[in-house]
Amino acid sequence: MEKTRFDLDPKRMPDRWYNIAADLPKPPPPPLHPVTNEPLHPDDLRTLFADSLIEQELTMDRYVAIPGQVMDMYGMYRPSPLFRARRLEKALQTPARIYYKYEGVSPPGSHKTNTAIAQAYYNAQAGVKRLTTETGAGQWGCALSFACQLFDIECRVYMVRVSFQQKPYRKTMMETWGAKASPSPGLDTEVGRQALALDPDTPGSLGIAIAEAVEDAAAREDSKYALGSVLNHVLLHQTIIGEEALLQMELADDYPDVVIGCFGGGSNYAGLAFPFIRENIRNNKGTRCVAVEPAACPSLTCGNYEYDYGDTAKLTPLLKMFTLGYQFMPPGIHAGGLRYHGAAPLASFVHSLGLMEAKALPQNAVFAGAVMFTRNEGILPAPESAHAIQAAIDEALDAREKNEERVILFNLSGHGFFDLGAYQAYLAGELEDYFHK
Amino acid sequence: MEKTRFDLDPKRMPDRWYNIAADLPKPPPPPLHPVTNEPLHPDDLRTLFADSLIEQELTMDRYVAIPGQVMDMYGMYRPSPLFRARRLEKALQTPARIYYKYEGVSPPGSHKTNTAIAQAYYNAQAGVKRLTTETGAGQWGCALSFACQLFDIECRVYMVRVSFQQKPYRKTMMETWGAKASPSPGLDTEVGRQALALDPDTPGSLGIAIAEAVEDAAAREDSKYALGSVLNHVLLHQTIIGEEALLQMELADDYPDVVIGCFGGGSNYAGLAFPFIRENIRNNKGTRCVAVEPAACPSLTCGNYEYDYGDTAKLTPLLKMFTLGYQFMPPGIHAGGLRYHGAAPLASFVHSLGLMEAKALPQNAVFAGAVMFTRNEGILPAPESAHAIQAAIDEALDAREKNEERVILFNLSGHGFFDLGAYQAYLAGELEDYFHK
Repeated sequence: MEKTRFDLDPKRMPDRWYNIAADLPKPPPPPLHPVTNEPLHPDDLRTLFADSLIEQELTMDRYVAIPGQVMDMYGMYRPSPLFRARRLEKALQTPARIYYKYEGVSPPGSHKTNTAIAQAYYNAQAGVKRLTTETGAGQWGCALSFACQLFDIECRVYMVRVSFQQKPYRKTMMETWGAKASPSPGLDTEVGRQALALDPDTPGSLGIAIAEAVEDAAAREDSKYALGSVLNHVLLHQTIIGEEALLQMELADDYPDVVIGCFGGGSNYAGLAFPFIRENIRNNKGTRCVAVEPAACPSLTCGNYEYDYGDTAKLTPLLKMFTLGYQFMPPGIHAGGLRYHGAAPLASFVHSLGLMEAKALPQNAVFAGAVMFTRNEGILPAPESAHAIQAAIDEALDAREKNEERVILFNLSGHGFFDLGAYQAYLAGELEDYFHK
Repeated sequence: MEKTRFDLDPKRMPDRWYNIAADLPKPPPPPLHPVTNEPLHPDDLRTLFADSLIEQELTMDRYVAIPGQVMDMYGMYRPSPLFRARRLEKALQTPARIYYKYEGVSPPGSHKTNTAIAQAYYNAQAGVKRLTTETGAGQWGCALSFACQLFDIECRVYMVRVSFQQKPYRKTMMETWGAKASPSPGLDTEVGRQALALDPDTPGSLGIAIAEAVEDAAAREDSKYALGSVLNHVLLHQTIIGEEALLQMELADDYPDVVIGCFGGGSNYAGLAFPFIRENIRNNKGTRCVAVEPAACPSLTCGNYEYDYGDTAKLTPLLKMFTLGYQFMPPGIHAGGLRYHGAAPLASFVHSLGLMEAKALPQNAVFAGAVMFTRNEGILPAPESAHAIQAAIDEALDAREKNEERVILFNLSGHGFFDLGAYQAYLAGELEDYFHK
């Protein structure tokens, strides 16, 4: 029996997160205050975040211990499995060996749960009663609803309108976990009312939804804000993925030449890639780490590396990142989780240092990869994750052409059970490709 | 760290299925030919089934070895996890210990994959090019589509109309795996045309859908038929669930006083319970095994134990089973997978011998259990599986009342990501309860 699955003994689950800032040749550029343009003081963040999360946001420590209660909750679905895609390899007739880490096993269905649990935990510790957030495709909103339920915190989700309409069941799922969800922009916030006045038919954007959630949290004593990507502490929490994958590649007696993740805000990519980049830096490994973004919203490959706002209302600090501009309105592609104008500052910094690669793919190619994958490996991927799949397929075909035994590892960040409308449109030949100009 | 998850080492995955017929005090009543009323000859089944499956249908051997290729495919998602529901226990303030086996980890999302892979394998071995089948809620149709794709077999699914309308994305999922699916009754078969002539607005039933799939397979040389429940060989393939659970309960250093499964045709219940009933018979264990059916379609608790047809068109053999009558049209409850007029003959026989218990629950109670479960344990259950959850909750509350350390094990046969319309209706207070009269 050929091994296709490499399960880590739960006793060996890593008990610390990894902070790549500690291993870079210089410190990352600081966030700036949106009004004064001065480097941010931790106090500036207190309205929105619990102290322990602010500390993690700014720490230069290489490792942060994972609290016992978070480890317990991780135990509901972690360690997540690592698979070798033997059927896909065969279908591609490639000498490459393709592995994937599957994060869709978490109850809400994606990697987002890794930081949702951590953020809910630290907020509960700080006595926070209510969290607000935004969500694109709904993966993050579901993850936070789930985590808040576990810690008895009220949860309020602003969901980008186009995704809200494409995936009505995401709302029901959030409500089943006790959260409240509504389409963004909406009438509950000043930001939302302004956006609707400007364009009543707007598909919405993560930038607007973030602004709504921030406005809500800032206005209420009992509330803090939670973000599902972009920030340092979010990327930190996701590194559990890469730390596990390192141990599982050992079980497979293999080591990746290429590591691939889809890229929206950057958290699932960073979660898998950063520990491998550490190995490149500290142990002279030579793994190529590739971020894959949608051609419709290509911040890393077409954006500028500069200070920009995280939201449309300029409520967030200025972050130095690859960005298409805070007012950029991405087309309504089905990979709603990747519709963000910017890229995580820490990932942007790593990219600016030449420590990783980036590429962009149009959505029809991405869905072709998704269908090929599910027909061979069974798992139905989220459209976001399918960006990584298609890039892995491209690598495997390139390896075939060059007759190379390339070892490829990608992050299958979530399942696509809520994205079948998109699959339907793809199978019917109705999907449009968009390219940023 | 309290253990909540008991993973079986893949090396210890059981490599044989269990046939309870070998351990019963007398042989089960034989199926009868629908025209002659004589006991069926294996030849009578050749139009519909591959020889090796007919052999399994009739065998009195205690164990059947699982072929290596099936073991490999099982390895994609098995051994499935066994969890202890510690958060649910706490919420119920019960001294009971509640465990559940989770079959939703298979790519199509339910236990049905266990027999789909086996049936596709044996049909592929026999050179069959095309399989037809029916599906209720869509779990079985998805499982067979997935398995046929793995073995390069064409797949044609007749899906009960009410479920087809409630869950349009199931069709897309089957098509993504390369199958063809349509609502039943439909115009492609004589049976379907007659049913539509009789009632153009019929919600359909599993009985009609089975008749359509059987008619289709019987009419074509290249096609055989596959059934997702009821038959002996289907129950046989599902016993991998109970065999794994026995080993996992050992890992938990515990043993169930009560084993619970939801009951439609009977395969997920039997899959978990039969190995425990074997332990009752052969090793003097005293586990109560409880089948839970919908109050709207209660074959075990309200049906007669008699010979009846498996479909509405009297195309199937006569099976001795608990039945509400082959013409019974169950109301359109959301647990579509439990809308079957009969009960697996082997489970019916076991029940008639007094070796198990049965109870029926209305759907609002079932959804209450589902929501309580997902708010505590995270996993969103299928409405079918939620019957087992609510029964487990009832047992835990009874144990609390009697101050008993009862050990409860139930089968969480699948996830409910395709059932959020039903959750939406429940949360809005719009679900009707139906009781069979």
